[in-house]
Amino acid sequence: MDASTLFQKIKEKESFLCIGLDTDHHRIPEHLQYMEDPVFAFNRKIIEATHKYTVAYKPNLAFYEALGSFGWKALEKTIAFIRQTDPSLMVIADAKRGDIGNTSKMYARTFFDHLGCDAVTLSPYMGRDTVMPFLEYEDKWVILLALTSNTSAEDFQFFRNEVQGLALYEKVLLEASKWDHADRIMFVVGATKAERFAAVREIVPDHFLLVPGVGAQGGSLSAVARYGMNNRCGLLVNSSRGIIFASDGEDFASAAAAKARQLRDEMALLLKTRGLI
Amino acid sequence: MDASTLFQKIKEKESFLCIGLDTDHHRIPEHLQYMEDPVFAFNRKIIEATHKYTVAYKPNLAFYEALGSFGWKALEKTIAFIRQTDPSLMVIADAKRGDIGNTSKMYARTFFDHLGCDAVTLSPYMGRDTVMPFLEYEDKWVILLALTSNTSAEDFQFFRNEVQGLALYEKVLLEASKWDHADRIMFVVGATKAERFAAVREIVPDHFLLVPGVGAQGGSLSAVARYGMNNRCGLLVNSSRGIIFASDGEDFASAAAAKARQLRDEMALLLKTRGLI
Repeated sequence: MDASTLFQKIKEKESFLCIGLDTDHHRIPEHLQYMEDPVFAFNRKIIEATHKYTVAYKPNLAFYEALGSFGWKALEKTIAFIRQTDPSLMVIADAKRGDIGNTSKMYARTFFDHLGCDAVTLSPYMGRDTVMPFLEYEDKWVILLALTSNTSAEDFQFFRNEVQGLALYEKVLLEASKWDHADRIMFVVGATKAERFAAVREIVPDHFLLVPGVGAQGGSLSAVARYGMNNRCGLLVNSSRGIIFASDGEDFASAAAAKARQLRDEMALLLKTRGLI
Repeated sequence: MDASTLFQKIKEKESFLCIGLDTDHHRIPEHLQYMEDPVFAFNRKIIEATHKYTVAYKPNLAFYEALGSFGWKALEKTIAFIRQTDPSLMVIADAKRGDIGNTSKMYARTFFDHLGCDAVTLSPYMGRDTVMPFLEYEDKWVILLALTSNTSAEDFQFFRNEVQGLALYEKVLLEASKWDHADRIMFVVGATKAERFAAVREIVPDHFLLVPGVGAQGGSLSAVARYGMNNRCGLLVNSSRGIIFASDGEDFASAAAAKARQLRDEMALLLKTRGLI
C-alpha cells in the first residue's frame, strides 16, 4: 500500500483511525475466558464490530508475546482474520524493534513475510542501517519513533544540539526523511504534545504521522488535526484501550463499535472542514 | 543474580564470555534440518558443547520470531535446556524492546516470568519510564543500548549537546546510571570502537558492559579488556556467529566448542594479567 492508496482509503471511510489491539488477556471479559483462545475470540469480535470505522489495526506485540507461543498463534489468527474481513485494512505490527542489519533482516521477514503485516514500528536509536532491511520490501512501511507520548520521552528525545538548533526527535525526522524510500516512512508523534505538531510539520510536511496518545493518554483529536493534518490527511490516529476496553461486560464489542464510530464521526468532520472529503 | 554473583561466576569459569544464540535456521547444518525442531536440536548441541566456557547465553529474539509460534517454542525449550544444564548460567533475551509503561510491564512478564530470563536488552529512546517496569524485578537485569557496534550507530548516538559536552550515548550512560536500581543496569558498548571504552569508563566506572562486535564484526578482545575492564571484570563479551557457525558441517558443535574454548583461554589470560584470578 502506498501513500495515495492510504489517502484514498481514508477518504472512502471518512476516517483516519487506527485501532490498537493491545489485547491484555487479564482484561478480556470473563465470558470469553473459557474459550479455547480468549485473545483471538476477543479480537475477532472487536474486528467484526469496528472494521467499518477504521483504516488500520495495530496489534501491540507485547500483549501477544506475554503468552509465548500461544500468544503468537493468537496474533497469526488475528492478522489472518483482519485480511479475511477486509484486505484493504492496514496492519501495523507495533513492535518497536531496531537491531543490526542481519537481525533486522530476520525481523523484516517475521513481520512482512511470515505475519504479512503492512508496517512495523521501529526505534531509530541504532540508525539508518537498522531500518533499511525493512524498507527494501516494496509496498511496506516503516513507522519510526520520533516524539513519543510517554512522560519520560523528554529524557533523551529533547536532548538538544544547539549548533544545529535541533532536539534529537527533530534530528530523527530530518535525517530519516532523507533516507532511500523515505516515502514509505511514517513517524510516531504523540498526541499529548499537540502544539509540537507545527514544528514537526516544518520538518516533514508530507509524511504520514502515526499518533498515539488520543483517549486513555489524554490527547485531543481536534488539536492534532489542527496542527498535524496535511493535504492528504497525513495522519493515522491510534486509540487502543479507549476502544477495545470501552466495556468489560458482554457488550464489549458494541461498546467498542460505539467508541470507534464516535471517533470516525469526529474525524469525518475534521476531514470535511479541511476540504479533503 | 547480582553483580557480585556474576563476578564470582566469571572468576570460577575464568571467562566473561556470552554466547549469542543467533540461530538462523537457514544456516543450521543440513543433517539437523530433518529433525522435528532443527533450531532447538542445534541449540542443544551448541549448549552441551560450550557451556563450560561461557557465563551467559544470549538468544537473539529475531531469529526465533522469524519462525512464528514454532520459533517461540524452540526458544522456550532452549532456555529450559540452559537451566537444566547449569542453573547458574545467565540468560539474556536480546530483544531491544522499549515501550510505554503498560506495554513494558507486559514485556517484563514475557521475558522474566514466562521465559525466565535473567536480563533483557532495551533501547533507551523512550526514556526512564519504559525501563523501570523491568528493574522492578529483583535480581533481574536491564541491558541498555548505549554505543552499538553497527556502522550507522553514528547517525544518532553521536548527536551532540555542546553545552553539556556530551554525545547522546554518553547522555544515556550518565542519566541511566542515576536511575533507581541502576546497579542492575548493564550497557551495550560495541567492541568495534574499543578506544571509546576509556570515555565510557569515565562515566560508568563500575557498571557491567555487554560488548558485541568481537569476532564476525571485527572487534579486538584485548583492546576491549585494556580499556573496558574494571576491578570486578565489568565485561561480558559476546560472540554469536563466530562460535555457533564456526563450522557448517556435522562437526559444528565441536567447532563451536573449540572457538569458545579459545576465547575462554584468551579471557583467562586477560583476567590473570589484571590480577582478578
